[in-house]
Amino acid sequence: MTTAALTPELLHQMDGYWRAANYLSVGQIYLYDNPLLKEPLKLSHIKPMVLGHWGTTPGQNFIYVHLNRVIKAHDLDMFYIAGPGHGGPALVANTYLEGTYSERYPNIGQNEAGLKQLFTQFSFPGGIGSHVAPTTPGSIHEGGELGYSLSHAFGAAFDNPGLIIACVVGDGEAETGPLATAWHSNKFLDPITDGAVLPILHLNGYKISNPTLLARIEPEELEHFFRGCGWTPYFVEGDEPERMHQLMAETLDRAIADIQRIQRQARDTQDASRPRWPMIVLRSPKGWTGPEQVDGVPNTGTFHSHQVPIVVDAEHPDHVQALERWMRSYQPEELFDADGRLLPELAALAPEGKRRMGANPHTNGGDLLRDLRLPDFRASALPVPSPGAIEAEDTRVLGQYLRDVTKLNQAPRTFRLFGPDETVSNRLSAVFEVTDRQWDARTLDNDEFLAPAGGVLDAMLSEHQCQGWLEGYLLTGRHGLFNSYEAFIRIVDSMFSQHAKWLKVTAELPWRRKISSLNYLLTSHVWQQDHDGFTHQDPGFLDHVINKKADIVRVYLPPDANCLLSVVDHCLRSRHYVNVVVAGKHPMPQWLGIDDAVVHCTEGIGIWPWASNDQGSEPDLVMACCGDTPTLEILAAVSILREHLPELKIRVINVVDLMRLQPSLEHPHGLTDRDYDALFTKDKPIIFGFHGYPWLVHRLTYRRANHNLHVRGYKEEGTTTTPFDMRVLNELDRFHLVQDAVDRLPHLGTKGAYLKQLVQDKLIEHRHYIGKHGRDLPEIRNWTWNVGQPKPE
Amino acid sequence: MTTAALTPELLHQMDGYWRAANYLSVGQIYLYDNPLLKEPLKLSHIKPMVLGHWGTTPGQNFIYVHLNRVIKAHDLDMFYIAGPGHGGPALVANTYLEGTYSERYPNIGQNEAGLKQLFTQFSFPGGIGSHVAPTTPGSIHEGGELGYSLSHAFGAAFDNPGLIIACVVGDGEAETGPLATAWHSNKFLDPITDGAVLPILHLNGYKISNPTLLARIEPEELEHFFRGCGWTPYFVEGDEPERMHQLMAETLDRAIADIQRIQRQARDTQDASRPRWPMIVLRSPKGWTGPEQVDGVPNTGTFHSHQVPIVVDAEHPDHVQALERWMRSYQPEELFDADGRLLPELAALAPEGKRRMGANPHTNGGDLLRDLRLPDFRASALPVPSPGAIEAEDTRVLGQYLRDVTKLNQAPRTFRLFGPDETVSNRLSAVFEVTDRQWDARTLDNDEFLAPAGGVLDAMLSEHQCQGWLEGYLLTGRHGLFNSYEAFIRIVDSMFSQHAKWLKVTAELPWRRKISSLNYLLTSHVWQQDHDGFTHQDPGFLDHVINKKADIVRVYLPPDANCLLSVVDHCLRSRHYVNVVVAGKHPMPQWLGIDDAVVHCTEGIGIWPWASNDQGSEPDLVMACCGDTPTLEILAAVSILREHLPELKIRVINVVDLMRLQPSLEHPHGLTDRDYDALFTKDKPIIFGFHGYPWLVHRLTYRRANHNLHVRGYKEEGTTTTPFDMRVLNELDRFHLVQDAVDRLPHLGTKGAYLKQLVQDKLIEHRHYIGKHGRDLPEIRNWTWNVGQPKPE
Repeated sequence: MTTAALTPELLHQMDGYWRAANYLSVGQIYLYDNPLLKEPLKLSHIKPMVLGHWGTTPGQNFIYVHLNRVIKAHDLDMFYIAGPGHGGPALVANTYLEGTYSERYPNIGQNEAGLKQLFTQFSFPGGIGSHVAPTTPGSIHEGGELGYSLSHAFGAAFDNPGLIIACVVGDGEAETGPLATAWHSNKFLDPITDGAVLPILHLNGYKISNPTLLARIEPEELEHFFRGCGWTPYFVEGDEPERMHQLMAETLDRAIADIQRIQRQARDTQDASRPRWPMIVLRSPKGWTGPEQVDGVPNTGTFHSHQVPIVVDAEHPDHVQALERWMRSYQPEELFDADGRLLPELAALAPEGKRRMGANPHTNGGDLLRDLRLPDFRASALPVPSPGAIEAEDTRVLGQYLRDVTKLNQAPRTFRLFGPDETVSNRLSAVFEVTDRQWDARTLDNDEFLAPAGGVLDAMLSEHQCQGWLEGYLLTGRHGLFNSYEAFIRIVDSMFSQHAKWLKVTAELPWRRKISSLNYLLTSHVWQQDHDGFTHQDPGFLDHVINKKADIVRVYLPPDANCLLSVVDHCLRSRHYVNVVVAGKHPMPQWLGIDDAVVHCTEGIGIWPWASNDQGSEPDLVMACCGDTPTLEILAAVSILREHLPELKIRVINVVDLMRLQPSLEHPHGLTDRDYDALFTKDKPIIFGFHGYPWLVHRLTYRRANHNLHVRGYKEEGTTTTPFDMRVLNELDRFHLVQDAVDRLPHLGTKGAYLKQLVQDKLIEHRHYIGKHGRDLPEIRNWTWNVGQPKPE
Repeated sequence: MTTAALTPELLHQMDGYWRAANYLSVGQIYLYDNPLLKEPLKLSHIKPMVLGHWGTTPGQNFIYVHLNRVIKAHDLDMFYIAGPGHGGPALVANTYLEGTYSERYPNIGQNEAGLKQLFTQFSFPGGIGSHVAPTTPGSIHEGGELGYSLSHAFGAAFDNPGLIIACVVGDGEAETGPLATAWHSNKFLDPITDGAVLPILHLNGYKISNPTLLARIEPEELEHFFRGCGWTPYFVEGDEPERMHQLMAETLDRAIADIQRIQRQARDTQDASRPRWPMIVLRSPKGWTGPEQVDGVPNTGTFHSHQVPIVVDAEHPDHVQALERWMRSYQPEELFDADGRLLPELAALAPEGKRRMGANPHTNGGDLLRDLRLPDFRASALPVPSPGAIEAEDTRVLGQYLRDVTKLNQAPRTFRLFGPDETVSNRLSAVFEVTDRQWDARTLDNDEFLAPAGGVLDAMLSEHQCQGWLEGYLLTGRHGLFNSYEAFIRIVDSMFSQHAKWLKVTAELPWRRKISSLNYLLTSHVWQQDHDGFTHQDPGFLDHVINKKADIVRVYLPPDANCLLSVVDHCLRSRHYVNVVVAGKHPMPQWLGIDDAVVHCTEGIGIWPWASNDQGSEPDLVMACCGDTPTLEILAAVSILREHLPELKIRVINVVDLMRLQPSLEHPHGLTDRDYDALFTKDKPIIFGFHGYPWLVHRLTYRRANHNLHVRGYKEEGTTTTPFDMRVLNELDRFHLVQDAVDRLPHLGTKGAYLKQLVQDKLIEHRHYIGKHGRDLPEIRNWTWNVGQPKPE
């Protein structure tokens, strides 16, 4: 690479394109009118509130024009992820220049009126935000909460062998935990079956008002860092545009050549040995090409350029001229014709059609989305001769179904399982009968199920990575499921929020197509932790999830394996939701045969007649349950109540679809008040055993008529103890539930008092027994449901 | 270092000590009886449920005995953080061997009965968990959720110049985001005023069932990685005990010498230039010294050793002998006397008194905790001539108070502010009048407020780091406050949970002293985001927080600056809580003078008589508010209602202390039902303007008598728009609130209908105006409270 990459003419044109993008960026931040500066700038042309982020924008404009060149030169299938996503003006400007913006938003045309509209809408009520957002063509990555750009990029690259994602990483973002560990994603990428990620670290030196770490370590440390992360770093450093254009072009040519050589070699030889993929470090001034100083304070190249460099308002009228000088420094008259259209020789620099990064089909993944081939989940079903007759590990049964799903969708591969090294622990290892864990680092003899082309991303201990990869995979039109310990899904609370917000906003944009749902399987849940104890107990993700828009979130707590199969099959068919499924992995009684399970899950809530004895009349008591453990304990409590108080009419209700509890006006799955009252009655006592924090049920039902509701659930009591003792500590066990019922039925009189005494004695017996033996009473361990059905022969 | 670090005799003794710790570790996992193997092992000696993590344990035992040696040799003030904290047996064994365990738990003595008890309690109901936990002497770090060991270590090192924290980092943990970025903490540590952190990467190669990344990259990559992170790595690699002892001893000597040289040099010359601190990579087999194979499957050195290597139970009776062989391989008879006491020549290897790592005073921080010197917050108070007469930025006022707090506690420095580069943005920059941001990387001319000895940790864009550092700082007996954008505090949801659980458990341990509260200041909140929009809107941290134990969590939403001062002063005096304070940073009306503010905040909830007109009688309507923005809008709604319906008796209630709403039986701050009813009435309509998700108020009040409650708050509607329009989108604005009130007061008849029409027209006018002008109606911008008080002159 000794000759210059760019001819002087091409360099001049690319610099013009860059100036055009910079001009449009400044225009977006400031202007309300006079977009081509046809008349001298006046205060009335400036927006009443000037808002936006300039600092990162010119650097991203620089990168974009250079990526355009290599896309055209090599006919690349490439798109752009803006890690420093607050640089919204850059992506809006560039997609406008390449024409995709006007195609998506025809009212923003390629003329002066369109320019005025483009400028006005930015950071303006009813317009667009200052971040790269769902409204931005070509984006799969929201620029609000930082840290996930590289994870999204890798998620997009998996199983897309022809795709390259240019991922611009901000040097502020690079300090976040999720981004810091995401550099290691390169140990998973298969050069044969996956695409490539080209990270471009945008080292402009400052965050909001602090310098960035990676800009202030020694150059050799920076190089060591990236080599240590397994990359081959190339450095593009400087501030002189001509030299920087040449250097960037040479470097990008080299990086693309590396990627193509690596892929060709691996694919020709079928040798997937881990390559040292290229990456680029672009060290350029923050606010590059902006005003050197503002009111005597240095601006370009300092943190002062982070947002709006020059405050222009009624209190600073003299700043109007400074802004005009700045904008005219880009020489707009050399870039746009009198109608405001980019000159043809510049417009010709952009790729065409779907090669334009704003029009890359992968960035509107719903367009590429195809249904999964789904096996009949009934094939994995357990025979359940009668309720409670057998025990099974629910997630192990699901594992067989997921194995079949994986197998059916292997060519082309469009389904993946994600998890932080918990897939085996969560009893889903049947999937390893048909695929492996993806892994492209060294292997040793005793490793299990590792392969560069594995379909399960399970070999990195990072919930952030699992979530980010999965989001990237879904956003580019594929399907997946994240299996996690219930407590530790909270690590990605904020990532879930941002994805839910993305789904809400994209659902409102006509041109955005719906994508596959984000499916969580939460297991290793609060109710059985054995040695792990208190730190592993947090069922509060449900509380978090249901704060998001009802149109987006779904929560399922199947009581047994067959219900779990039915629910997951449903989730995998759904679109544009976040589905949260909570299930157990330990042996538990099975209640419903597959046909009953399908009916029950389709309804989402229902009376279990075989457990109830209120047939055809108003019950005295409703015993409701949601979740596998509460279902077991509620049924055990019912069996005690029915044995001792046979005249008591009890209705047992099981809830699979949690949102059925909410009013129908608040959630599309919500029961009408009439249906709710028909199930729960208007005033009879309800004892509700719930998997999570009990007040969540109150929060869902406070508008319902029946306030005679007593909920038991997890109340932050836990330690290393037996499964039954966990329930006792949180008063969700059968004995406490019986007490609760009796307390609500004063008419029982001495009969009730007797039963209360009996269960209190049982609790004392339990306490003594586990203190001595370290396990639950035999009668608890061996308990089975035997009410209202013939005794087993 | 050419001669061997250890004499043959010392090496032999240290190996014995290591074997003793390993023996005790295996004993904890398996044994119920026969702790000294005085008789042949039988199944009845084995616990009914064998649970625990062996894999990491022998390596940590190895590290511990070597740290003991250097502590004694150099009289070091050092403690141990166990990143792979599921290796609980190691820390329990070592604190037992050094005597601290028996001092904390006298029933577990240094004899055979004590050993039996030590073994039995492990992973046993009523005993201890299998993790390093609050119950473990010498621990400030819970071993449940991985990723925070290094952040905790650095938090402990700040402002403790004589302290060294040996921080063992697991190679699984090292894959998490928070840990990956925590390596860069070394750019903040001041070699003069802070202590040192010695990371020891425990590279044993496997996670649960996968290999670890750092174990499977090339050796030069690993070295590059750590040099790139600014460390000087030393490698200790092998599996042959004798060689490894010698190598570890030499390497530790070198690392300690490095630390001491770095500190001496910096302190002698007062040159704080960033040192390249040493770290150690210990590559040793997982499950080292365990069974080579179990049932023909390799165990030691593979992931199979992660938990319990040999399953010993009634189904595997032959495994009893394998376990016995394994345990006897440590030759317990050479280590313990017949009474079960460690032989004196081995016991002499441990440091003495407070130098024992299990007894280091920093690890029971409450013991070292001293009250802050607090200035009179009234000195920072704003004069408020009448309610609403002035505007101010609440957090800017607080900044002055925090400046004074910082100043008063600079020698010794015991108070720090933490934040992810948001301290200036959050308007707290007054603190930089008296201190700087801590920063020990390169600086440039235009940087602001950076210094190696700065007292504010604000220069790293990582909420995880802020939280982890602050926790480490508090756990070692100091004070602090974390300021964050409200939405992005969700990034540390799970870290908060784990800290809250730590507080709950330590409060129940008599020997653990209470520590200072963890204080959050959440600002840049949901109600004004300007250009940042939807991604920056999430008030749900409150929902998350109040799921934790009522004894631990406190939530405050001061309506103005003087209340904010009073609340923060209170929080800084409190102990062992998590305090969440939500406050605005934008100019807002001020309501209470400082004396009224103190009274109001002390009550936590109260009627605002100057805004109410129900004096001495039952009101027709209660208008309640919680948070600065709801307070403004409720008062504006009240002024409309009082203007148009002067005969309507309205009571205005403001809530500062959110937990006052909960029943007194559920939260110590909760109002009794009687007091609640006295404020809110039993049946009059309540219109409640709330800062966060509206259903949170329902969740807190569902047990109260008055269900005639209508709450407005954030319901996930937001975009880039004006502050008032944000309220309109979420129907929290004055006009919607007036509508809500009228809807609940049907007796108003046509008067009500007229007023409803009027406010609906206002909403239309608002919509038109912002669409055209991009800002709020002048009457909204200029609105001031002018009811019931003399007009300003």
